[in-house]
Amino acid sequence: MSRVYNFSAGPSMLPEEVLKKAQEEMVEYPGAGMSVMEMSHRSKVYDDIIKETERLVRELMNVPDNYKVMFVQGGGSTQFAMVPMNLGTKCKAADYLITGQWAKKAAQEAEKYVKVNRIASSADKTFSYIPKPEASEFSPADEVDYCYICYNNTIYGTRYTELPKTDAVLVADISSNAMSEVIDVSKFGILFAGAQKNLGPAGVVLVIAREDLIGEPQEGTPTMLTYKTHADNDSLYNTPPTYAIYIFKLVLEWI
Amino acid sequence: MSRVYNFSAGPSMLPEEVLKKAQEEMVEYPGAGMSVMEMSHRSKVYDDIIKETERLVRELMNVPDNYKVMFVQGGGSTQFAMVPMNLGTKCKAADYLITGQWAKKAAQEAEKYVKVNRIASSADKTFSYIPKPEASEFSPADEVDYCYICYNNTIYGTRYTELPKTDAVLVADISSNAMSEVIDVSKFGILFAGAQKNLGPAGVVLVIAREDLIGEPQEGTPTMLTYKTHADNDSLYNTPPTYAIYIFKLVLEWI
Repeated sequence: MSRVYNFSAGPSMLPEEVLKKAQEEMVEYPGAGMSVMEMSHRSKVYDDIIKETERLVRELMNVPDNYKVMFVQGGGSTQFAMVPMNLGTKCKAADYLITGQWAKKAAQEAEKYVKVNRIASSADKTFSYIPKPEASEFSPADEVDYCYICYNNTIYGTRYTELPKTDAVLVADISSNAMSEVIDVSKFGILFAGAQKNLGPAGVVLVIAREDLIGEPQEGTPTMLTYKTHADNDSLYNTPPTYAIYIFKLVLEWI
Repeated sequence: MSRVYNFSAGPSMLPEEVLKKAQEEMVEYPGAGMSVMEMSHRSKVYDDIIKETERLVRELMNVPDNYKVMFVQGGGSTQFAMVPMNLGTKCKAADYLITGQWAKKAAQEAEKYVKVNRIASSADKTFSYIPKPEASEFSPADEVDYCYICYNNTIYGTRYTELPKTDAVLVADISSNAMSEVIDVSKFGILFAGAQKNLGPAGVVLVIAREDLIGEPQEGTPTMLTYKTHADNDSLYNTPPTYAIYIFKLVLEWI
């Protein structure tokens, strides 16, 4: 059977070279005598894998030194809660731009934790455009903890060509454009991407967070939903999705 | 190089037959023309995989019909929060038996959400035994939402040979004894197991929950940490860890 190419917005095709390499190393990772799936996440071999994955992310996305790179679980949907739980600690309010179902869901989830200001929405024209509010329409930077966008909206074929005119910390879901275009990380407080769209297999989320934003979260935030937990433990607080991260590394090497 | 067998309590060895099957199907899952990693979680092929995984769990563990079987992310450590957030809604209190580091961590996390009664602990003798409190030492069933145990404690070599004499709903972490001994599911309200110890690769947690316990969680519980979210959507609310579940299925077929 010839290969089928899945262009879906969810899990989609991976480079054949990556799959072949994974196939080759499935039963025995070179030098380890076992599969990556079988090795301890505390082992030297695995530590090399996860460190190299981080190094490649930093290199490919030109991540500044004052940002942490984390690998977490739970998909983008878990980030919808983690962002307000971790960042919504001072003003307990945030601006959201509604450009599609994902941004809408993120705003709905955030309402459990912060006051959500929906600054603009393109729902009126079935999300067929990116609204461009004036600087004056955003909340003053000292009245919100962050401003949230979904950078690329696959379903509607829209993307930001210029960033919103907000002075607040910018948070972006880059699940569908991570590493497919140049993103200036320094312009953001938090960037996150579910790997399955652009970067690798489902089951791992890439989070890039500016260090000064990684602090004590809201009261009642689960330990596993606290950025600090993952940042302080180099994504090894508990067992990470070891194999998904390994495949992610193979994709990054291929890029 | 000959195969190395990792007997760790974390990720550990998988059957070689499982790895070889995964290797064979890595680039092209039979009939699909693509890897399992590449296929949509909403596709017919993947739906068959996840449904068969559930069927095998039900068959192998003899799961009664009034229990839901779910596949979630975040490891056992996320369950430490999900259990009190979802079950701690009436009395907002729970009994915990402290038989090792994992039970201890579970109790600590639960304190964010419920009043935790530490009924007994074997910390006095470095967790070298399982305490056996009398029935009268547990909280009355109408004063706690559940009683929590870690069924098997790998690090200390201890396990329950009889269940605690509580009348409350029993919750057990079975990460290290799931499917390696017969467990009467009907005696429990919730059972959960991080797959990486006994069942498959890291990145997926098996949760078996009695249906009447799956309701509205505490206020502020993230959607993704709500059992109802996963139960109502057959573990497909968002993209699940598709490949980890597929390997889990191969392990169950091997058993």
